[in-house]
Amino acid sequence: MNAISDIGAGVGLLERLRIRAGHHTGPTAGLAPGNVQANLVILPRALAHDFLRFAQANPKPCPVLAVGDPGDPTLPGLARDLDIRTDLPRYRVWRDGVLVDEPTDIKALWRDDLVSFPIGCSFSFEQALIEDGIEIRHISCDANVPMYRTNIPTVPAGPFHGPLVVSMRPMKPADAIRAIQITSRFPAVHGAPVHIGLPEAIGIADINAPDYGDPVPIRPGELPVFWACGVTPQAVIAAVRPAFCITHAPGAMLITDLRNTSLAAL
Amino acid sequence: MNAISDIGAGVGLLERLRIRAGHHTGPTAGLAPGNVQANLVILPRALAHDFLRFAQANPKPCPVLAVGDPGDPTLPGLARDLDIRTDLPRYRVWRDGVLVDEPTDIKALWRDDLVSFPIGCSFSFEQALIEDGIEIRHISCDANVPMYRTNIPTVPAGPFHGPLVVSMRPMKPADAIRAIQITSRFPAVHGAPVHIGLPEAIGIADINAPDYGDPVPIRPGELPVFWACGVTPQAVIAAVRPAFCITHAPGAMLITDLRNTSLAAL
Repeated sequence: MNAISDIGAGVGLLERLRIRAGHHTGPTAGLAPGNVQANLVILPRALAHDFLRFAQANPKPCPVLAVGDPGDPTLPGLARDLDIRTDLPRYRVWRDGVLVDEPTDIKALWRDDLVSFPIGCSFSFEQALIEDGIEIRHISCDANVPMYRTNIPTVPAGPFHGPLVVSMRPMKPADAIRAIQITSRFPAVHGAPVHIGLPEAIGIADINAPDYGDPVPIRPGELPVFWACGVTPQAVIAAVRPAFCITHAPGAMLITDLRNTSLAAL
Repeated sequence: MNAISDIGAGVGLLERLRIRAGHHTGPTAGLAPGNVQANLVILPRALAHDFLRFAQANPKPCPVLAVGDPGDPTLPGLARDLDIRTDLPRYRVWRDGVLVDEPTDIKALWRDDLVSFPIGCSFSFEQALIEDGIEIRHISCDANVPMYRTNIPTVPAGPFHGPLVVSMRPMKPADAIRAIQITSRFPAVHGAPVHIGLPEAIGIADINAPDYGDPVPIRPGELPVFWACGVTPQAVIAAVRPAFCITHAPGAMLITDLRNTSLAAL
């Protein structure tokens, strides 16, 4: 499964080479259309096993697409020619939980104990929704998706613990039902929603005041639909304040050679 | 697909023979557990084609499981030994749209132009929900499912037209999402819900005053979930007032040899 296709490898490598050469340092939305893009977490080996246990126990917020070998900057399951140290437009470097730098490559920081975790992102399922004719409000509004800390706990593992963060997309009820069907096919990129309607039932006091991203309008006759969000592992890691950690910069994702359609479970 | 299994044929025939012999004239809920039960409409051949066109255009409220040959009381696709004239506990006979009789067999009324339409019923998907641990409120309350006329029109065909009727089951949002996934697997028995939350958006003025069946409590933190309902074709036929028509009596369904699990599309 998730075999790399020629078309995916072609458009993926093209964009990664542009990024590797320093020609693109901004957001990746819209690049290599149809290819899977991923969140990235890089942790020292000492934390890697607990983080992978956390992901295994919380697959909806933390769908790990691959795990790098310690010190190995390639990810052969995701792309034919990939260097995780250079192929994202921008990184964030964290020391003791504090953001210390936002470089465009991390070659100088690479260590032989670093483990890469690309994590599925909602771009993939949003493409499937849009192709089915469902409006994605934050895209229509040219905004970031609104995200909220909930009162739903994640399953802890080692030092990693904290609340589930969800993203919200307002939809008419019939579209919400269709969106549940479509995203159920994509467990590798957060899968089906975790909640619908009734924000207060999951601890969201004000739907117009997201904890991350931008508020978007919910129109009469629409329900808020909530998906587990990849910000969850980022928030969980931030709370642990590891001595050293690297992530992607917001919006500057890892472009893989996988096609979104290849992630469909059905 | 929908092959008749030995276990389905065994328990199905046992109950049909008891009914055929007049030993059971009441509701069929709980009989032949795991076997598909069906609503029944019998129409003269002159109306049969338009009704089948109506069903084809409205598969969610009107999922036809089989169509009898004119005048033929068997349904070999649904059961090995079945006589549609004797094998339901009770029938309703309609003349010019008026209920004129509720016999326990229709042998004396049978004609060589009558066409049988067994139509999928929600018993099948409710079993799948219950087996997944989801509470079905009207079953917990020992009541009939609440049903509502909506402002959603069906697609007309010939004389058949009218509003969609829906059944409602209240659920917590996470259960509602799971129920959408499960019932999506069963297109032959109404499939996925047509609406969730916001009753007023589909023309339901008072959720506590169903048009058919009994009201059930919706608890705090629950949403009403609405499925297309087999009462839709019954209401549509009633509005046409055909010169002659036979249906099952409410709750007295056709027991087939098919297993509910065999209807799963996935």
